[in-house]
Amino acid sequence: MRKALYPGTFDPITNGHLDLIRRALGVFDRLTVAVGTAREKDPMFTVDERVEFIRDAVRDLDGVDVISFRGLLVDTAKQAGATAIIRGLRAVSDFEYEFQMALMNRRLAGEIETVFLMPSESYTYLDSTIVKEVAILGGNLEGLVPPAVERELMKRGGGGESA
Amino acid sequence: MRKALYPGTFDPITNGHLDLIRRALGVFDRLTVAVGTAREKDPMFTVDERVEFIRDAVRDLDGVDVISFRGLLVDTAKQAGATAIIRGLRAVSDFEYEFQMALMNRRLAGEIETVFLMPSESYTYLDSTIVKEVAILGGNLEGLVPPAVERELMKRGGGGESA
Amino acid sequence: MRKALYPGTFDPITNGHLDLIRRALGVFDRLTVAVGTAREKDPMFTVDERVEFIRDAVRDLDGVDVISFRGLLVDTAKQAGATAIIRGLRAVSDFEYEFQMALMNRRLAGEIETVFLMPSESYTYLDSTIVKEVAILGGNLEGLVPPAVERELMKRGGGGESA
Amino acid sequence: MRKALYPGTFDPITNGHLDLIRRALGVFDRLTVAVGTAREKDPMFTVDERVEFIRDAVRDLDGVDVISFRGLLVDTAKQAGATAIIRGLRAVSDFEYEFQMALMNRRLAGEIETVFLMPSESYTYLDSTIVKEVAILGGNLEGLVPPAVERELMKRGGGGESA
Amino acid sequence: MRKALYPGTFDPITNGHLDLIRRALGVFDRLTVAVGTAREKDPMFTVDERVEFIRDAVRDLDGVDVISFRGLLVDTAKQAGATAIIRGLRAVSDFEYEFQMALMNRRLAGEIETVFLMPSESYTYLDSTIVKEVAILGGNLEGLVPPAVERELMKRGGGGESA
Amino acid sequence: MRKALYPGTFDPITNGHLDLIRRALGVFDRLTVAVGTAREKDPMFTVDERVEFIRDAVRDLDGVDVISFRGLLVDTAKQAGATAIIRGLRAVSDFEYEFQMALMNRRLAGEIETVFLMPSESYTYLDSTIVKEVAILGGNLEGLVPPAVERELMKRGGGGESA
Repeated sequence: MRKALYPGTFDPITNGHLDLIRRALGVFDRLTVAVGTAREKDPMFTVDERVEFIRDAVRDLDGVDVISFRGLLVDTAKQAGATAIIRGLRAVSDFEYEFQMALMNRRLAGEIETVFLMPSESYTYLDSTIVKEVAILGGNLEGLVPPAVERELMKRGGGGESA
Repeated sequence: MRKALYPGTFDPITNGHLDLIRRALGVFDRLTVAVGTAREKDPMFTVDERVEFIRDAVRDLDGVDVISFRGLLVDTAKQAGATAIIRGLRAVSDFEYEFQMALMNRRLAGEIETVFLMPSESYTYLDSTIVKEVAILGGNLEGLVPPAVERELMKRGGGGESA
Repeated sequence: MRKALYPGTFDPITNGHLDLIRRALGVFDRLTVAVGTAREKDPMFTVDERVEFIRDAVRDLDGVDVISFRGLLVDTAKQAGATAIIRGLRAVSDFEYEFQMALMNRRLAGEIETVFLMPSESYTYLDSTIVKEVAILGGNLEGLVPPAVERELMKRGGGGESA
Repeated sequence: MRKALYPGTFDPITNGHLDLIRRALGVFDRLTVAVGTAREKDPMFTVDERVEFIRDAVRDLDGVDVISFRGLLVDTAKQAGATAIIRGLRAVSDFEYEFQMALMNRRLAGEIETVFLMPSESYTYLDSTIVKEVAILGGNLEGLVPPAVERELMKRGGGGESA
Repeated sequence: MRKALYPGTFDPITNGHLDLIRRALGVFDRLTVAVGTAREKDPMFTVDERVEFIRDAVRDLDGVDVISFRGLLVDTAKQAGATAIIRGLRAVSDFEYEFQMALMNRRLAGEIETVFLMPSESYTYLDSTIVKEVAILGGNLEGLVPPAVERELMKRGGGGESA
Repeated sequence: MRKALYPGTFDPITNGHLDLIRRALGVFDRLTVAVGTAREKDPMFTVDERVEFIRDAVRDLDGVDVISFRGLLVDTAKQAGATAIIRGLRAVSDFEYEFQMALMNRRLAGEIETVFLMPSESYTYLDSTIVKEVAILGGNLEGLVPPAVERELMKRGGGGESA
């Protein structure tokens, strides 16, 4: 059985992340989505909220686990029994950061391969940051995030600075 | 009559921005320069100061209004009667961020087109951030910013950290 | 009245080109689509065929002319009464070639501005070359090119080398 | 069982390709290396020679088949029972071409996913073209290609133009 | 005698920096490594610590001075008698920032040339930031930084957030 | 004495090349400009013509030799007594090709360093290919190439295809 780990901040999960989860399940038998606790300095949602949003969004998909993690990513991958780390590649600006992380992870654990998948072109320019910006300004997020995330973002947004 | 909106932080306006304003006036009949209130976390100049610097710099040009704005950019464009948003494209690193914003704005208001113009090659590597860094270090800004901005930057700069 | 020129090889026109023509008509009052005679070393369609495909595809749009041209692009723009040259920007690899051409055209005719528009993200990775490759291999082109182009490509393709 | 297809021109196979084959075998159970017959206008080696070089280089690896193919890549993938197409991503210039191909293949066969792997950084700037150029100029190729390829390249090279 | 200046934050020095120092000494007769006091908002090491780490790492190399600096980089270069500023270019994302700085420095002091060198490909994706992240998470840094830096990083790291 | 080699096709030399030669002479004591015989499939000028154009253009500069070369670039560098190869970096698209060549040359002769210089921003988008295209179309080349090259290009151009 082929298992993979899909790590990220997911603050919050978007439909681009969901698209990637579905694609990963076409290549691997099981997928662990792993929510990192750091990186994003000032997250909008707690780790528990982010895990809940993902669990809710993937509840109809077979073979997906959702966890949070601390410490080295490669250690989490080993504990999950994953032989691959999944990352989405959308644009050139992703590319070099992702390669840097992948090469460092290869140094730390050579037996785990980083595997890059390409999201649907509808999501090329979608990420959590722009979703939060639009929410804060009161813009419409339909089709960009799962419905539960949309409702929560609408509740918290609406104050309004310039985009 | 063709109207366009040129949004930005303009903290402060540079000669690269002015070059773009002149080019936009070659393509559109009227241009509204719109100073955003957020984005830049820790601006050097207040929104009012930034608006004043621009008004001063464009006082000899016909067809330019300068405003400040809050909220969704596309709402500001509609209120200004603009059918296009003007953005300058200088380098590859601009490109992907600008496309992300343009696609989001297209989703929010499909009838407004983002139009990219290319500044003079003399300004390819000029932006407000490097101008402020050089000012703080006491470097010469002649020819990079309008004279009024230069005087004010020289007044505030001069402390000095490494560039 | 604001007129623009949209030059290209159009060997053949794709739905990405058509999308850009529609967007340009939202910004300019009239648009001249200008089919270049050189550049593509070994075109699949003659200039006359390419002009015909475009005329057929834009027959329901107001304000579009289709011409072929030889010689300097800026001379053609002046003859067409255009103050702007339209170019589509899809990806980073377009970017630098387009800037090189735009800067050269600015040198040759400073009063004509190059204006970059962004096609729909559905067409980000679509161009005439890949369309011809897929046609030669017998792949399905529905939704990628206008119907008349699709029929003609299907007629000529079908032999088959690897993609 | 998870099967993948690794297509390419392989004119000739380099140690960078071999590195990728080994990595793919860490993620998939079986791998079919598929040598395309077109693309490279003026190949140095025939398809049969290229297939032989690969067979020789992978003879100690379990789970690898080597074939040549014509026609649409996605049809070859289906015939091989593969659910994924493997591609190596080395540099930004690869990125956009690879995405264009992957999106077109997704259109032609949505059930087959393109999976990008990262070669060892030792091979970031290695490709078949530069290998052939160095061979023609009589440079040393040790460690860049399998020994049988190196011998053959040395035999054919040695004339000498500038690199 | 040809002197060059190699400026940076060096928080802390990595083996990639050391590789570049060695390469610069193949091109110039003397090299001044200049540790900037600003830029990095929240450095892990003080300027004095960073200078000490470098001095220790280069103690076997002839022709290297290590200093700290404040103010404009070009003024420091002049004081050091340098006619060139050395910068390492690793990836596309470096490229545009580096060009912006180099063009500004050329404006400020036209007689000083910025010279770009390419580190060993083993260090393409190595920088001080990722080294600190891995240290904090308790990962192994052997071969990435000089031994004294590694010991100190290990002492300070070990808390642990997600990478 | 520090000697460097500046290789290229120079078909023909442009003012961007000349700018780079002047900058290289600010860093090195002597410079050998080396005209490659291959690479450009269908050159406009013979190697001898290209060498002559360069000799004419640099006749007022001290310390410059102009030669033609065949075979491996690093062998030519060694024969010229050069410890560095000079290359101009203008844009991201140059970057990866240049790095590939530089890494290969480092493999072939580790003692020779490739040194990248940045041309004046006026020449960022200038290269021999676009100069020839404009000449063929009868466009004005003043300020882009040395006067003798301009005269010759004007003589040979003038036929006219689309740019």
